[in-house]
Amino acid sequence: MAADHISQAVIRRLPRYMRFLTELKEEGVERISSRELSDRMQVTASQIRQDLNQFGGFGQQGYGYNVSKLIEEIGHILGLDRPHNLIVVGAGNLGRALAGYGNFAKRGLNIRALFDIAPDQSRPEVRGLKVYEMKTLPEYLKNNPVDVAILTIPKENARAVAELLYSLGVKAFWNFAHVDLGLPPDALVENVHLSESLMQLTYYMNH
Amino acid sequence: MAADHISQAVIRRLPRYMRFLTELKEEGVERISSRELSDRMQVTASQIRQDLNQFGGFGQQGYGYNVSKLIEEIGHILGLDRPHNLIVVGAGNLGRALAGYGNFAKRGLNIRALFDIAPDQSRPEVRGLKVYEMKTLPEYLKNNPVDVAILTIPKENARAVAELLYSLGVKAFWNFAHVDLGLPPDALVENVHLSESLMQLTYYMNH
Repeated sequence: MAADHISQAVIRRLPRYMRFLTELKEEGVERISSRELSDRMQVTASQIRQDLNQFGGFGQQGYGYNVSKLIEEIGHILGLDRPHNLIVVGAGNLGRALAGYGNFAKRGLNIRALFDIAPDQSRPEVRGLKVYEMKTLPEYLKNNPVDVAILTIPKENARAVAELLYSLGVKAFWNFAHVDLGLPPDALVENVHLSESLMQLTYYMNH
Repeated sequence: MAADHISQAVIRRLPRYMRFLTELKEEGVERISSRELSDRMQVTASQIRQDLNQFGGFGQQGYGYNVSKLIEEIGHILGLDRPHNLIVVGAGNLGRALAGYGNFAKRGLNIRALFDIAPDQSRPEVRGLKVYEMKTLPEYLKNNPVDVAILTIPKENARAVAELLYSLGVKAFWNFAHVDLGLPPDALVENVHLSESLMQLTYYMNH
């Protein structure tokens, strides 16, 4: 499959294409030239052509790209053409913020439940999602397929919780805890170290 | 200054060095070899030596690196040796999560206040920080220096709010809204597009 030969740099840019193309579609735009897309995304038209050519992007001389087709193709490469089930572990502000973010569901990334050591009964449900007690997690996983666990827990507990989830069959982790999880190599982990991004900003502010 | 010649790739890795070195310091480790650091960080020792040599890292044959000195030096490069004042604009779950994160203050990244169009009076303060009404923002900025605005608002409002902040003198933005801010070139913007990170994960899950 063509998607297997795409460079990592392009893979990293695909979600950004996805975002802009989806915006265009929502605005009713059906096709776009690499030049117009370039103006909008603030990257060169030649980079766009190069990137999209890597997976046989549907650009045609004098026509440009078909927006819907391109969204479909990129969605396929990113695995978004099948639905995923996600759970949030850690129902603090960050976990709730992610669970409340409606755009994930639009991409078939369906957050199904939140878990917390001590669910705060005083706080309202997030988008109708229940916050379950952590101790019910093994039972939940037996009865519900989970593709991705979103870890929004303090770093002190993150490794133990990740190991538990892994041992119960969860193999992909979106990790917001400020620690490397140390899971076996077949686990997929995408770390979000927010403070590292903030430090990039302070670097550029001071140079 | 040496820091001006450091490659962008290294700059991007420095916060990660900072995190591991700070952990080591907290564990009471005073010095470490590139090999030990390599085991811990799961990168090659030669990459560590190469990276740290770029700014004259303090490694010494047979001694290794002085942890505190290295933290100090990296902190200096990242601009963390002077305090920064930050405000959060958008006091929803995400804004509150960031305001509640204690580790920023340890780096001199001091969140001073939160702003919201409609502060939710029923929610408690975050770490003693008040949530002010957006309309008081111009007055606040007149009386308080702000280095960085953290934008945790819906994308619909993000550009207008960023323009307002920019016109009032704020020049650095940590942007969580899913839109490019379109500010003048002298504005510094670090975008955090969380869903793009999640899509990296789905890509690897499906290949």
